[in-house]
Amino acid sequence: MGRVTVRRKTTRLAAGERTSRIDTLVVEEPLELRVGGESLQVTMRTPGDDFDLAAGFLLSEGVITKPADIVSMRYCAGVDADGEQTYNLLDIALAGGVAPPTKAAKRNFTVTSACGVCGKDSLEDVRTKAIWDLTEDATVVDPNVLADLPARLRKSQKIFDKTGGLHAAALFTADGDLLTAKEDVGRHNAVDKVVGWALQQGRLPLRGTVLAVSGRASFELVQKAVMAGIPVLASVSAPSSLAADLADESGLTLAGFVRGDTMNLYTHDGRVA
Amino acid sequence: MGRVTVRRKTTRLAAGERTSRIDTLVVEEPLELRVGGESLQVTMRTPGDDFDLAAGFLLSEGVITKPADIVSMRYCAGVDADGEQTYNLLDIALAGGVAPPTKAAKRNFTVTSACGVCGKDSLEDVRTKAIWDLTEDATVVDPNVLADLPARLRKSQKIFDKTGGLHAAALFTADGDLLTAKEDVGRHNAVDKVVGWALQQGRLPLRGTVLAVSGRASFELVQKAVMAGIPVLASVSAPSSLAADLADESGLTLAGFVRGDTMNLYTHDGRVA
Repeated sequence: MGRVTVRRKTTRLAAGERTSRIDTLVVEEPLELRVGGESLQVTMRTPGDDFDLAAGFLLSEGVITKPADIVSMRYCAGVDADGEQTYNLLDIALAGGVAPPTKAAKRNFTVTSACGVCGKDSLEDVRTKAIWDLTEDATVVDPNVLADLPARLRKSQKIFDKTGGLHAAALFTADGDLLTAKEDVGRHNAVDKVVGWALQQGRLPLRGTVLAVSGRASFELVQKAVMAGIPVLASVSAPSSLAADLADESGLTLAGFVRGDTMNLYTHDGRVA
Repeated sequence: MGRVTVRRKTTRLAAGERTSRIDTLVVEEPLELRVGGESLQVTMRTPGDDFDLAAGFLLSEGVITKPADIVSMRYCAGVDADGEQTYNLLDIALAGGVAPPTKAAKRNFTVTSACGVCGKDSLEDVRTKAIWDLTEDATVVDPNVLADLPARLRKSQKIFDKTGGLHAAALFTADGDLLTAKEDVGRHNAVDKVVGWALQQGRLPLRGTVLAVSGRASFELVQKAVMAGIPVLASVSAPSSLAADLADESGLTLAGFVRGDTMNLYTHDGRVA
């Protein structure tokens, strides 16, 4: 497995003083996913939990829905030009009958409009792929429990403490029990690692859970929650218009600016009571 | 042109009180770029400065290097199913002799290693594509000027004030004069808009300038700065390992955690004096 942090000589300027010191940086390395020998995607990620990342990515794209859809995942057995195993290529074999991802799926869009994609196409695309109906999930979360999650997410960030350079995502029960927390240089990767972990644990759909994320709530993060059957998404920051639209249409409760004892509920606020 | 913000009914919870109010959200919409009729990329972005975004993206990928490389950019003239122009598809025509982007370029990688990509491949890929040598840029920035840029970047964020949901990137002279500032839901898009603006203004290479960004400094942000000939990148947050490696190798000065009167210089610290 590749390293998660590296140490690097750094010049520190503080109040006019210039000092040299050793700083810890988070590692960013490309990961190539191949499905059935075909290169599907190269993503910049922090090494670690790569199998979860791959499973979560395939789930989010609507390629797989259960653990048995993946027959095997393994790192490329070869080495790079320096004779080192890079752990940067994952070969994934899907079960018979599981259609490999298409180009359109990779792009998150089925281009239907003669004049290019639009937000409505993006919503329609998720509607087509999602297999669990969040509106059936009667989960209720206490606002005090929800308000506490960002601080608990922050506490779970072991690598952030050393580097300050990571996003995080964590899955909680509606009572606030932590199920798992993952870190990555990429917001999307952190969420993929969480839902991929849950998929491989056979926990899907994730009824009665709350996904907390360290950054903003974009369309793609809502998509990942919807595809995993998560009814509540809590972000410490702002949602985008399309994130709120997708949450609204999918039956997901979207909470933003969850800070201290304040928060905004953008959609399906009945679950927070 | 599409809208940049939308208003949405929101439930606000604060200190146990539940109120309903209208909130302003930043718009996120897909933009499809087509080059010579071929779909190149769909990116989720905030509408506005789409021509800059497209030019900056093509520059970052090593497809174009000067304004004349683009013959025309225009929105698809058609309408969507509701009869509305979506402004979400840009048709780009490149000049004769300018090679259209390849699949490998789209992925930011030339996959050379038998066992998948690694960080070194990513560095090598940028080395191959970059046409300006940053080591020749003798720019010196006063640390007090540099320390001031994050606050000035923040002041330039008009949409952030209303929504709290955007990233920003701004280009300054070494003396701290603002050249341009752009906002977007995506960190990469904000930088693409800045360098695409500069390219279309005939300002490349951007010798003697500083790029300030609102988020972390990832590999791809350093790549975009290098491809535009920018010698100094200042981030309010942490860089990744690969971002520092690329900055080191390319001759770019990478400053991180620029906050108050403190900052870390990860590479080529001689330019800050």
